[in-house]
Amino acid sequence: MQLYSYFRSSAAYRVRIALNLKQLPYETVAVHLLKDGGQQLQEPYTTLNPAALVPALVDDDGTVLTQSLAIIEYLDETHPQPPLMPQDPAQRARVRALAQSIACDIHPLNNLRVLRYLKRELHVSDEARDEWYRHWVHTGLHALERHLAGSADTGRFCHGDTPTLADVCLVPQVFNARRLGCNVERTPTVARIDAALRELPAFIAAAPENQPDAE
Amino acid sequence: MQLYSYFRSSAAYRVRIALNLKQLPYETVAVHLLKDGGQQLQEPYTTLNPAALVPALVDDDGTVLTQSLAIIEYLDETHPQPPLMPQDPAQRARVRALAQSIACDIHPLNNLRVLRYLKRELHVSDEARDEWYRHWVHTGLHALERHLAGSADTGRFCHGDTPTLADVCLVPQVFNARRLGCNVERTPTVARIDAALRELPAFIAAAPENQPDAE
Repeated sequence: MQLYSYFRSSAAYRVRIALNLKQLPYETVAVHLLKDGGQQLQEPYTTLNPAALVPALVDDDGTVLTQSLAIIEYLDETHPQPPLMPQDPAQRARVRALAQSIACDIHPLNNLRVLRYLKRELHVSDEARDEWYRHWVHTGLHALERHLAGSADTGRFCHGDTPTLADVCLVPQVFNARRLGCNVERTPTVARIDAALRELPAFIAAAPENQPDAE
Repeated sequence: MQLYSYFRSSAAYRVRIALNLKQLPYETVAVHLLKDGGQQLQEPYTTLNPAALVPALVDDDGTVLTQSLAIIEYLDETHPQPPLMPQDPAQRARVRALAQSIACDIHPLNNLRVLRYLKRELHVSDEARDEWYRHWVHTGLHALERHLAGSADTGRFCHGDTPTLADVCLVPQVFNARRLGCNVERTPTVARIDAALRELPAFIAAAPENQPDAE
């Protein structure tokens, strides 16, 4: 498999974790989001993924997959061990909701193209742009904290004691939150789970600093 | 079942369509996003859904479900007929990717809380805020158009000739895009599929103007 990835992309980081948890070998194809005016915005990448966003995964049979959560559920369906989703529909819905609370409610507001638009088109100051970033991270992580802290389904990780789709989303989001100066300790359950996950080899190997395109 | 809904919410609209396609009866509990400073931000709703976003679905056994895509996959798993997802993993991934290209790449940038932040915190003019809205809709719909127009899997609807999770997301997004003055005809495949879907009774009954809380 080939993963079109950028070392700091949260969405690519999620897929790297899932590939590692499944012990699936893959080749990294670096797509540099800042060089050449953004390699994701140009050929040949936009033919592969017209949405011009990383990641994309090309499976061994040539199938092109986009959208990180869709890719991870595909990997879970085609390589079921170890499972990243529970079996029970209500528990599956809980895991998906936790993942989507990051992937739909936090990350889209804070990725590169949005921060750029704030600066270039709306002429927002660096301070106001960073405050925008922290506002959505704190809003989202506090919602996640209340969900996790208030549920008996939360274990060592987001759902029980084995990593799921929710955990795969949590670590990249917390990584980026810390990088932009958010105080993650204000959400203690999130911080505890993140610390436990970051001890696992699959998460360590997927970290931005351990990628071939890391700077 | 009880659906906590707001007639104009895209995410609630998606769940209404899915419930109707499955022919599942439900009671609408109106959560007015503008009245009382936003009923979604206050008790009792925030106890039900700490993320303070609509929709939430309470199943007959009391299970509380949040995040529209997670709710819809739960409905599809617990009430399989008619299916909203294909069987094949690669096709499932395609449908999920199309849905997420709306739910992760377009809608989060344009919902009420974000447009409010632009105006109240960043003091963006109404014109610049509307341009922000149209920018992300056009960017997203053009990516969706290229994905749909370039694939043999696209049929009468987003994936083949029966409605899927992708279609359930498409119609509410196009509805909102039109409401804010976007020219959807610039994406002809999107416009064609939207028109075909809006003829189906399940989609008609779910439309904002046909809700008990419509204004």
